[in-house]
Amino acid sequence: MIAEIISIGDELLIGQTINTNAAWMGQELNKIGIDVHQVSVITDDEQHIRKALDESRERVNIVLITGGLGPTKDDITKTTLASYFHMPLIENEEILISIKERLKSRKLEMNELNRKQALVPANARVFLNKWGTAPGMWFEDKQNVFVSMPGVPTEMKGLMTEYVLPAIQEKFHPPEIIHKTLLTMGTIEARLADLLEDFENELPAEIKMAYLPSSPIIKLRLSARGQDRSLLEKLLKKQINKLYEIIPDLIFGTEPETLEEIVGRLLKERKQSLATAESCTGGNISHLVTSVPGSSDYYVGSLIAYANEVKINTLNIPVELIEKQGAVSKEVVLQMAGNVKDLFGTDYSVAISGIAGPSGGTPEKPVGTTWIAIGTPDNCIAYKFNLGTDRLRNIHMASLISLNLLRKNILKAGTVLV
Amino acid sequence: MIAEIISIGDELLIGQTINTNAAWMGQELNKIGIDVHQVSVITDDEQHIRKALDESRERVNIVLITGGLGPTKDDITKTTLASYFHMPLIENEEILISIKERLKSRKLEMNELNRKQALVPANARVFLNKWGTAPGMWFEDKQNVFVSMPGVPTEMKGLMTEYVLPAIQEKFHPPEIIHKTLLTMGTIEARLADLLEDFENELPAEIKMAYLPSSPIIKLRLSARGQDRSLLEKLLKKQINKLYEIIPDLIFGTEPETLEEIVGRLLKERKQSLATAESCTGGNISHLVTSVPGSSDYYVGSLIAYANEVKINTLNIPVELIEKQGAVSKEVVLQMAGNVKDLFGTDYSVAISGIAGPSGGTPEKPVGTTWIAIGTPDNCIAYKFNLGTDRLRNIHMASLISLNLLRKNILKAGTVLV
Repeated sequence: MIAEIISIGDELLIGQTINTNAAWMGQELNKIGIDVHQVSVITDDEQHIRKALDESRERVNIVLITGGLGPTKDDITKTTLASYFHMPLIENEEILISIKERLKSRKLEMNELNRKQALVPANARVFLNKWGTAPGMWFEDKQNVFVSMPGVPTEMKGLMTEYVLPAIQEKFHPPEIIHKTLLTMGTIEARLADLLEDFENELPAEIKMAYLPSSPIIKLRLSARGQDRSLLEKLLKKQINKLYEIIPDLIFGTEPETLEEIVGRLLKERKQSLATAESCTGGNISHLVTSVPGSSDYYVGSLIAYANEVKINTLNIPVELIEKQGAVSKEVVLQMAGNVKDLFGTDYSVAISGIAGPSGGTPEKPVGTTWIAIGTPDNCIAYKFNLGTDRLRNIHMASLISLNLLRKNILKAGTVLV
Repeated sequence: MIAEIISIGDELLIGQTINTNAAWMGQELNKIGIDVHQVSVITDDEQHIRKALDESRERVNIVLITGGLGPTKDDITKTTLASYFHMPLIENEEILISIKERLKSRKLEMNELNRKQALVPANARVFLNKWGTAPGMWFEDKQNVFVSMPGVPTEMKGLMTEYVLPAIQEKFHPPEIIHKTLLTMGTIEARLADLLEDFENELPAEIKMAYLPSSPIIKLRLSARGQDRSLLEKLLKKQINKLYEIIPDLIFGTEPETLEEIVGRLLKERKQSLATAESCTGGNISHLVTSVPGSSDYYVGSLIAYANEVKINTLNIPVELIEKQGAVSKEVVLQMAGNVKDLFGTDYSVAISGIAGPSGGTPEKPVGTTWIAIGTPDNCIAYKFNLGTDRLRNIHMASLISLNLLRKNILKAGTVLV
């Protein structure tokens, strides 16, 4: 069973608004076994809307339309739908009362524009909008269902959850579908595909896999589809276990948990604490760690030692060491990790020093050279990476790589990683 | 001149990825006078891609396609385009060399999948991808241009900026369009619209204004469209001067300069330095400041004092003060600003302490309560804000508000702000 989403609105086309509605609807439809086959974002124009309706009914059974239902004059979806389905517009008393009450509670008078919102196509099924004024509308025409909803996210989500999704399930009885997404880090997509070639070829017919790269993370999404949910769950579990056997070092978690949440959970479970000392990432590791609610349970703080003076005066790195080895060096980053752990009295620490770019590189230490050290209860271990030349990308990559190294060290506490 | 964007990828349809690419492309096309007429998000399926190409060429002149160019087998855009335009795939030596070098710099071997990325349709114009491995491709067919790019945002943006947008301008000579975007902070959209009602009504026909809110910033984009560029520039300048007269305290800059770049420039011009002491923002202010290339010229570092122990032991905040006033208080945040300025020896400082949420609030200090202090060469000034209940939004808002207060204090150095 497949659906199309038609999003109406110039604000989407000029990029003023990002189409988060379509993503949310795709997720929710997917959960009840409906595939979104196409999303079409179109202008507030009658001919364009008619054309999109004609095209969509050729492709899919279910067409979900958002936008163009506000009271202002650039919103013409409702009159277009009424004329497209050859229905007159009639005033709906239930909607009229609900709009009146809504306005009254906000101490506003009913005007002509509001009154027009109570007009609905005569034979459409109407869903009362408790989250705003424009109602949802359900049209059936031959094998197709068309549903029109406002574009305001809270109103669309309310109508979808309360009325539209249940009505679709009742009418179409879609198949079961289960997604599971594994998170990997440590290699590039082509190499991962090599490692998983046999695995992919041996996948049962019910399961498909997709690579979703967002450097340095590559997500592996497995989707199982069929009639018997418990059978699908079993099949999926078996394949996921296989993946853990093939690439145990690359998988770091499963969605919806993020890397920073995983690190936080591991520390919380062990009642251990973390501090960081950042140079080239300039606070981004700290920002990621503290994005997680409850991070104050395990995160103590950070010293962002951007200038060498801070490394020397507050983090007690010997000036001679920086002069001899350079601030971006194994020796300095190891001392940073050890000293920040001592300074803040934590079990773990992450220290990082690198050349984020775009300038500041040398032949021996080009832009992208990055040293990371992880301080554990037993020792400190340093790692070197050569990242790229893009400053923001380097900061992003270095932050996630650091957190993944921290994760590995927490799991292998007591064992030195090579 | 109108364009269509075809975004290919199941991850967009199931809502795993939000289509930010289409929004960015819509904005950029708009800037050079090209309107996006439709965005079509479709599956990784040959027939679906062919159908979308057929439909789009009926609607528009320019079709921009993203996605489906990775090396793994779920990516079939390139072979579909080659067959659609009746071109064989041939190996492109320049691309092959560039992929080899890219892999070599990451110490990876070339495999068959990488090698396939160097295949391109024989008569397509090829854009070398410096940001990844899959090249951009430009096809001309009768009156239409079709451009294929990878779906990875950094790669698409690099190709668009460097090659595709200039090539579109060269071929289609769209009308002159000049955008100027003023950045404001300090009020809500409805209030800003009130203040600017007369201004909007008096705008000349060539100029339109749009409100682009992304809390706490509201951008005001003025667009002038016509044939005579120097006339448009004159008209625009006059209106911008008018805006500066109406809302001088709200405007903080003009695009493309960001708030963090403005603050950096002001410090650099004055040869002054900055340190921060963050609690609730957890390093995000530091991250913003250090996102700017060259920030090491004025930014010294930060103490992320997430735990009270760090505030007490490293930042020397008296334990009695925290016990009496609470960590989220005027008194504590003023001391944080003063002490971090002394500790790191800087001219300016920003200190912040608040309740980011979702929990941790009390009746007197609900979630969102945020104290910010700015340390200047002369004194320290504290400000209180009541933000919302959403943790990530609070961190984002508090960081930008802090930088704007810093900016105001740098400009009025010596004068105490009320």
